[in-house]
Amino acid sequence: MPPMDTATPTLSRRLLAEGTGAAFLLMAVVGGGIAAQRLSPTDVGLQLFEAAVVTAFALAMLIWSFGPISGAHFNPCVTLMDTLMGRRPIREAAAYVGAQVAGGILGAILANLMFELDAVAWSQTTRGGAGQLLGEVIATLGLLMVIFLIARPGGAGTGFVAPAVGMYIGGAYFFTSSTSFANPAVTIARMFSDTFAGIAPASAPGFIIMQLVGTGAAYLLVRYLVNEA
Amino acid sequence: MPPMDTATPTLSRRLLAEGTGAAFLLMAVVGGGIAAQRLSPTDVGLQLFEAAVVTAFALAMLIWSFGPISGAHFNPCVTLMDTLMGRRPIREAAAYVGAQVAGGILGAILANLMFELDAVAWSQTTRGGAGQLLGEVIATLGLLMVIFLIARPGGAGTGFVAPAVGMYIGGAYFFTSSTSFANPAVTIARMFSDTFAGIAPASAPGFIIMQLVGTGAAYLLVRYLVNEA
Amino acid sequence: MPPMDTATPTLSRRLLAEGTGAAFLLMAVVGGGIAAQRLSPTDVGLQLFEAAVVTAFALAMLIWSFGPISGAHFNPCVTLMDTLMGRRPIREAAAYVGAQVAGGILGAILANLMFELDAVAWSQTTRGGAGQLLGEVIATLGLLMVIFLIARPGGAGTGFVAPAVGMYIGGAYFFTSSTSFANPAVTIARMFSDTFAGIAPASAPGFIIMQLVGTGAAYLLVRYLVNEA
Amino acid sequence: MPPMDTATPTLSRRLLAEGTGAAFLLMAVVGGGIAAQRLSPTDVGLQLFEAAVVTAFALAMLIWSFGPISGAHFNPCVTLMDTLMGRRPIREAAAYVGAQVAGGILGAILANLMFELDAVAWSQTTRGGAGQLLGEVIATLGLLMVIFLIARPGGAGTGFVAPAVGMYIGGAYFFTSSTSFANPAVTIARMFSDTFAGIAPASAPGFIIMQLVGTGAAYLLVRYLVNEA
Repeated sequence: MPPMDTATPTLSRRLLAEGTGAAFLLMAVVGGGIAAQRLSPTDVGLQLFEAAVVTAFALAMLIWSFGPISGAHFNPCVTLMDTLMGRRPIREAAAYVGAQVAGGILGAILANLMFELDAVAWSQTTRGGAGQLLGEVIATLGLLMVIFLIARPGGAGTGFVAPAVGMYIGGAYFFTSSTSFANPAVTIARMFSDTFAGIAPASAPGFIIMQLVGTGAAYLLVRYLVNEA
Repeated sequence: MPPMDTATPTLSRRLLAEGTGAAFLLMAVVGGGIAAQRLSPTDVGLQLFEAAVVTAFALAMLIWSFGPISGAHFNPCVTLMDTLMGRRPIREAAAYVGAQVAGGILGAILANLMFELDAVAWSQTTRGGAGQLLGEVIATLGLLMVIFLIARPGGAGTGFVAPAVGMYIGGAYFFTSSTSFANPAVTIARMFSDTFAGIAPASAPGFIIMQLVGTGAAYLLVRYLVNEA
Repeated sequence: MPPMDTATPTLSRRLLAEGTGAAFLLMAVVGGGIAAQRLSPTDVGLQLFEAAVVTAFALAMLIWSFGPISGAHFNPCVTLMDTLMGRRPIREAAAYVGAQVAGGILGAILANLMFELDAVAWSQTTRGGAGQLLGEVIATLGLLMVIFLIARPGGAGTGFVAPAVGMYIGGAYFFTSSTSFANPAVTIARMFSDTFAGIAPASAPGFIIMQLVGTGAAYLLVRYLVNEA
Repeated sequence: MPPMDTATPTLSRRLLAEGTGAAFLLMAVVGGGIAAQRLSPTDVGLQLFEAAVVTAFALAMLIWSFGPISGAHFNPCVTLMDTLMGRRPIREAAAYVGAQVAGGILGAILANLMFELDAVAWSQTTRGGAGQLLGEVIATLGLLMVIFLIARPGGAGTGFVAPAVGMYIGGAYFFTSSTSFANPAVTIARMFSDTFAGIAPASAPGFIIMQLVGTGAAYLLVRYLVNEA
């Protein structure tokens, strides 16, 4: 991206950016899912396609918006990877994760309210099984691979991270059997809506563990590929 | 965007740009809606998806076209935010709003005529309720957040405003329950067509008030995030 | 676009570029239409949407490919506008138009052959009426407006012409009632296939006349907006 | 793309990049096809459209990710063309092809596993006939034309190769009758899944031969168009 932040934004501003971005991301994921399911009742593939495009669009525009302020992670796995790469202190990373989860839950609640549902309704949608758990590992591995290969010095350029992440998740809604949560904050927030995008609280830990496994795999792959210290 | 306007275009040129852009935007919104509803009669979600993609495409290409001339607002809330940020005198802002509304109405009428409908037919579509009104506040807040974060000095760059706004509105057609009008000029113009995209005149004031509330919220959020004077 | 052609390509290379690009454009328009109609038989809106996205993708990638060689017009109205703006001699413009028409017809024939139809079958699809004719005027006006505003010095930059033109035509497939031919070479070539995208030879002259009217309107609009000599 | 690789990555890193990229590409092609077919059972056009968009998104984000490391070929025809252009030694090209095929097969297997199918199931889908074989020639010719025109010095710029290739293949899924395999590594890998995207082993050689014919045609066309030595 063009020259920016001669001065880094304060931590409170960056946390507000992470939280606001996560809130809009969850509004897109949950709200888009509700609209797709209500309006296209006869074809689940069309519902998923509508939701995938809405999420892809949301990710791209949010990363362009918040990237220069906070890095536009909206995802604890991205923040963890940043810390593993030695680029973000653990204390700051923990604050980022808190903002991501809080913002995400707020977004899910706002989506429920916009569509005149109860503010919170725990999802009943059980998700899991070997195929979907493998899907979450691959989904997270691929997401971090894309972000950290494109954004690095010598990569294609940070301006392309936004559309690439949107396209990655939009595609992975279909090509991973788990529909690519790939984000613990999103996984937690999606427990709060008993709609298309929801996940039952009992299914969330399995998904999150696989996301952490995928993060570790991504760290090894990216470090080898770009040979950083 | 690349260096431009060593000389700012004259106000009359900028007003023509705002009006022409608004006219094409409304042709896309109203005409796209008419075609979607006629051609995909069995699935409302598919209708909305077709209309969302058409509108997203239209916004992106119009902002690339008119941005270097007038700023490509096409939206009184964007112009008002500019004025609140101290960047556009009130008198000029008022002229912009007039051009946006006039151009928008012209676009709605041309859409009606292209599809061989009466030039003007007041919409009968009632829109409102707490969920949709909340939707309009959020839709407008998010739209202005995206524009003013990306276009500012230090943002991702003005060249990305065009696709980001297209993606934002394309996504928000689904993820806000109001289908994201987020624009008083568009709201007024959509009263003039009794088709898919229409809004009954009695419903318009509620939508517009919520858009202004969203503008105020966006002003506070953006000012805090980027710490401008 | 980045610096290029310290030496302008020879005319024969540029004509080959115009012809090849027009051939691929017509394969996309005609072939995409055949596939959409065969594979999505129950929803005409879905057929048109598939065809619109295929055409949008084709235009963007072809303009990126051939822009630095020939300007990537693929369209006599674009070439005519260039000549009206004083930027292309009439003799060269005539050669461009010939290459565009010949390439377009070749593309329509190749599309027929790929889908195992007769190489040439005159379209039986009558198109016209006041609404569609108005649609062609507006479609052409808007297309030239987008191209010449973005590509001019001081515009958003030639690199954005490719996606903007793709989005414009993709959107205008829906929002103009004529499905936006907006191109005499495309109109002629589409007579050669009696499939989804076809146009009966008797309907073609009306469309082409309206495209020329739209070109004149675009010339006046663009000249006023950018105040060129 | 921005300045990169002051030092070229080692061959082993580049081969890992080619293999990983091909694996993700095949997950998108095969996995996206499985999801589309399962979830949208009533409209084959919608299945193909979903698969086309997933593949387009995957190609764009993978090329942005791996382009600065290995060139992001993922396709023996691209590597062969590079060698024909005198830019990649034969020994290295052979290693690239090996990595592409191995990665592609791994991706197809992972897609099968994610969707809880047998790791390997030979496809029963016969593909061929004069129309489809012509389709593969054109599909490969067009793909290489787009890549080598955009990426060359004086072209629109390497940053645009990623979206252009995504758009090209996304469009050609529809506009070529063969659904545009255009890649021998992809063709081989798609034999390993008896699902939407599969191709019967007996049909693969015909497709691959036509892809090589298309490569030769592309070489002649591109060399003439850009007049390289």
